[in-house]
Amino acid sequence: MVRANANYGKLKASYLFVEIGRRVSAFQSEHPDRQVIKLGIGDVTRSLPKVVVDAFHAGVDEQADDATFRGYGPEQGYPFLREAIAATDYASRGCPITADEVFVSDGAKCDTGNFQELFAADLSIALPDPVYPVYVDTNVMAGRTGAWNNGRYGGLTYLEANPGNGFVPPPPSHAVDLVYLCYPNNPTGAVATREQLGEWVAYAKERGALILFDAAYEAYIRDDSIPHSIYEIDGAADVAVEFRSLSKTAGFTGTRCAFTVVPQRITVADDTGARHRLWDLWNRRQSTKFNGVSYPVQRAAAAVFTDAGQQAVRTMSDYYLANAAKIRATMQRLGYDCVGGDNSPYVWVRTGSDSWAFFDDVLHRAAVVITPGAGFGTMGEGYVRISAFNHADKVEEALERIKAALS
Amino acid sequence: MVRANANYGKLKASYLFVEIGRRVSAFQSEHPDRQVIKLGIGDVTRSLPKVVVDAFHAGVDEQADDATFRGYGPEQGYPFLREAIAATDYASRGCPITADEVFVSDGAKCDTGNFQELFAADLSIALPDPVYPVYVDTNVMAGRTGAWNNGRYGGLTYLEANPGNGFVPPPPSHAVDLVYLCYPNNPTGAVATREQLGEWVAYAKERGALILFDAAYEAYIRDDSIPHSIYEIDGAADVAVEFRSLSKTAGFTGTRCAFTVVPQRITVADDTGARHRLWDLWNRRQSTKFNGVSYPVQRAAAAVFTDAGQQAVRTMSDYYLANAAKIRATMQRLGYDCVGGDNSPYVWVRTGSDSWAFFDDVLHRAAVVITPGAGFGTMGEGYVRISAFNHADKVEEALERIKAALS
Repeated sequence: MVRANANYGKLKASYLFVEIGRRVSAFQSEHPDRQVIKLGIGDVTRSLPKVVVDAFHAGVDEQADDATFRGYGPEQGYPFLREAIAATDYASRGCPITADEVFVSDGAKCDTGNFQELFAADLSIALPDPVYPVYVDTNVMAGRTGAWNNGRYGGLTYLEANPGNGFVPPPPSHAVDLVYLCYPNNPTGAVATREQLGEWVAYAKERGALILFDAAYEAYIRDDSIPHSIYEIDGAADVAVEFRSLSKTAGFTGTRCAFTVVPQRITVADDTGARHRLWDLWNRRQSTKFNGVSYPVQRAAAAVFTDAGQQAVRTMSDYYLANAAKIRATMQRLGYDCVGGDNSPYVWVRTGSDSWAFFDDVLHRAAVVITPGAGFGTMGEGYVRISAFNHADKVEEALERIKAALS
Repeated sequence: MVRANANYGKLKASYLFVEIGRRVSAFQSEHPDRQVIKLGIGDVTRSLPKVVVDAFHAGVDEQADDATFRGYGPEQGYPFLREAIAATDYASRGCPITADEVFVSDGAKCDTGNFQELFAADLSIALPDPVYPVYVDTNVMAGRTGAWNNGRYGGLTYLEANPGNGFVPPPPSHAVDLVYLCYPNNPTGAVATREQLGEWVAYAKERGALILFDAAYEAYIRDDSIPHSIYEIDGAADVAVEFRSLSKTAGFTGTRCAFTVVPQRITVADDTGARHRLWDLWNRRQSTKFNGVSYPVQRAAAAVFTDAGQQAVRTMSDYYLANAAKIRATMQRLGYDCVGGDNSPYVWVRTGSDSWAFFDDVLHRAAVVITPGAGFGTMGEGYVRISAFNHADKVEEALERIKAALS
C-alpha cells in the first residue's frame, strides 16, 4: 500500500502567501466593488526594463529559426549568463567566485527549498525568527523537525530577531550544522554589517557549520558599508552558499530567473566518512532533477548584467525604495516603531497587537493587503510587513487609506 | 559538523546524458575537424512553430508594459493553460480530468524526479528495466534503495523488458507500492495496449499501489488502438498520476514547459494513519518549492493547444517519425533487430555486444552520437537507442556513415 510522507502532516498551515491569497479572494468576493491595493506578497509591479525585453525577444526569435534554435541547455545555465553574473556581481566586489560556481535556476524559492536535500536527515538547523517560511517548511517536509508546539517546530534553533539585537541575531552559543541567513532580511528589512557577517563566518569555521545565505534583496542596499554578498567576508567561500534572484532586482517574479553560488572548495563528509565536494552534490542534484532555465529567459537575464541593465536595476530599486521611505514615514507618524525600508523594500512595523487580526483589520477597513508578521514565525507576532512593491500612486493611496482607517 | 546525504554516494555513475556529453566533448577535442551528428540525447532540433513563437512574443510584450505586466503567477500554472490542456488532451479523449488537476511545470524531468518526495521513505518501488534514469536515480538519492550490485540497486523491483514480452513487462506477482511506467517507452519505443494498461490499473487497485505514468512521447502514437493517456483506462484516475511534456511534442526542450495530472480523488494514508489527498500533497510541495513557469512561456505553451498549434505538433512529430522509419529500416538492413520507431521517436537496436563499446565505436568511426542501452539499466545491455530527433538530411548522413562504419 502506497503511503504518504508523514512529515507533510506536521506542516502547521498552508504556505503563508497561499493563505493570504485565500483571505484576499474571500474579501474580494464579499466586496466586489472595493479596489484592493496589495502591499503584501512582495511582488514587483513595474514592467521589465527595455534592455531586458529586447534581449528576451531576440531569444524568442532564435527559437523560431532552425539555424539558431536551442534545445536542452546546460542544467547549470549557459556560460554567457554565468560569466556575466560572476563578473558583474562578484569580481567587481572582489569576491573570489568564478562562473563555474554559479548555478542558474528558475527561482531562489526552488533553490533555497531544494538545497537541504544534499544533507543528512538528522542535521541540526538554525534559522532566523521571523523568516521567509520556505527554509522552515522544506526542512519540516524532509523530516528534520519535531512536532509543532506553541508556534515552533521541535529540534530547530530559532535565532530571535528583536529590537534588543537590532533584528540581527548573533550566532548561538551551541554548535549547529546548517544555518539559514537572509540579509537584507525578509521580512524585517534589517541588514547585517561586515562585522556581524564576519562573526557568522568565524562561527561556521569553528563549528563545522555551513551557511546558506539568501541575498535576494541585495540590490536595495544603499549604505556603502553593508556587504551585498557574504563572499565580501574573508573565508566565506569556505563555508557559505549564496542564493540570489532577479525577481526583486529586475522585475523577474513572473519571468523566473535566479542563481545559486556554490564555491568549489567546500567539502562535506557523509555518515560513511566519504568526503564530497558540495559543488558535485548540487551539480548532481540539478543534473538529475532539473533541466535548466528557458533559453529566451536566460538571454533576458543576461541583459540585466549589462551596463544598461544595471542602470535599469538601479532605477527600479530606487523607485521602490522611495515607496518604502513613504511607508515608513507614514507608519512612524501614526505612532508605530519601524525598521527596514532604507536598505530594503520591506518595512517591518510593530503593531503590538495580534498580527493576523491587524492584517484582517487593514484588509477590511482600508482594502489594503499587508503581511502578518506571525506568518514568518513567533517573533513576528505583534508586527506586520509592508511591502514597497507597487506603483507610487497606489502606495500613496494605500497610505491615505491606512491613515484614515487607523487614525 | 554539517554532513552530506550519504545516499548520493550510492549513485553509480554520473547522470547518463552528462556522461555521454563528456565522451562527445573528449572526442571533439581530439578530432576538431570531424562533424559530429547527434542521434543521442533525444533533443529536438526543429524550431518552435510560428503560432507558438507569436504567442511567446505577445507574452514578452505584456511583460514590457506596466498595464499588462504579470508578477508571481499561480504555482500550479495559469488557468488559461490548465484549461486548454484539460480540454485538448483529456476531454477530447473522454478522460475524466479537470483543469484543476493539471499542474504546469518547467519540465517532466523535474516532476518525475520530485514526485517521490510525497511518499514514505520505505516504500517498495517497481520500475521498468531499461528505463529513463531519473526514476531510479531520484529514489536512490532519497534513500529508497540498497547498494549497487551487479548493475542494480538493492530493494527495487525491476520490470524486465525483453523480446519475450514484447518489451512491455507485465505487473509483478508480488505487491509493490509505487510503479513507474513510461509509454511510448523511453528508451525502447515500445507502446502498451489498452489491455496491458488495464492490467496495471487492476493491479494497482488490488495491491494499493500508485502508478506514475510518464506519457512524454504520446504525440508520436499513430496506432489508433493505443491509448495516449492512462486515463483512457476506466478507473485509472483512482490510481494513477500522469506526466507530460511539451519538449518532444512542440519543441520545448530549450523553452521548458510540462505538466503533471494529479486526480483529486486519489488519497494516500501516512504512517500515522491520517489520509491525505494526493492533490493536496503535490499542491503543497509545488506551492512551497516552486514558483510557477515563466509567464511568456505559458503563453507560448497555450498556443500549442490551439487548432494551429495541434496541427504544428502533428507536422513536427510526422517529420521525426519519418526519420525514425529510416533509422529502423537502415539498422534492420544491417542485420540488427529493432523495436520502436513507429509510435515513438526512438529505435531500440539489438547490437548483441557491449553497449558502451558500441557507442564508442559508432562515435569514433562514424562521428555519430547514439545512446548506449546499458545507460538505461542492465536489460539495456546489448542494445542502443537511436533517436530520430535531428534534421532529415543529418539523419540520412548519419545513417550513411553508420552503414559505412558497420558494414
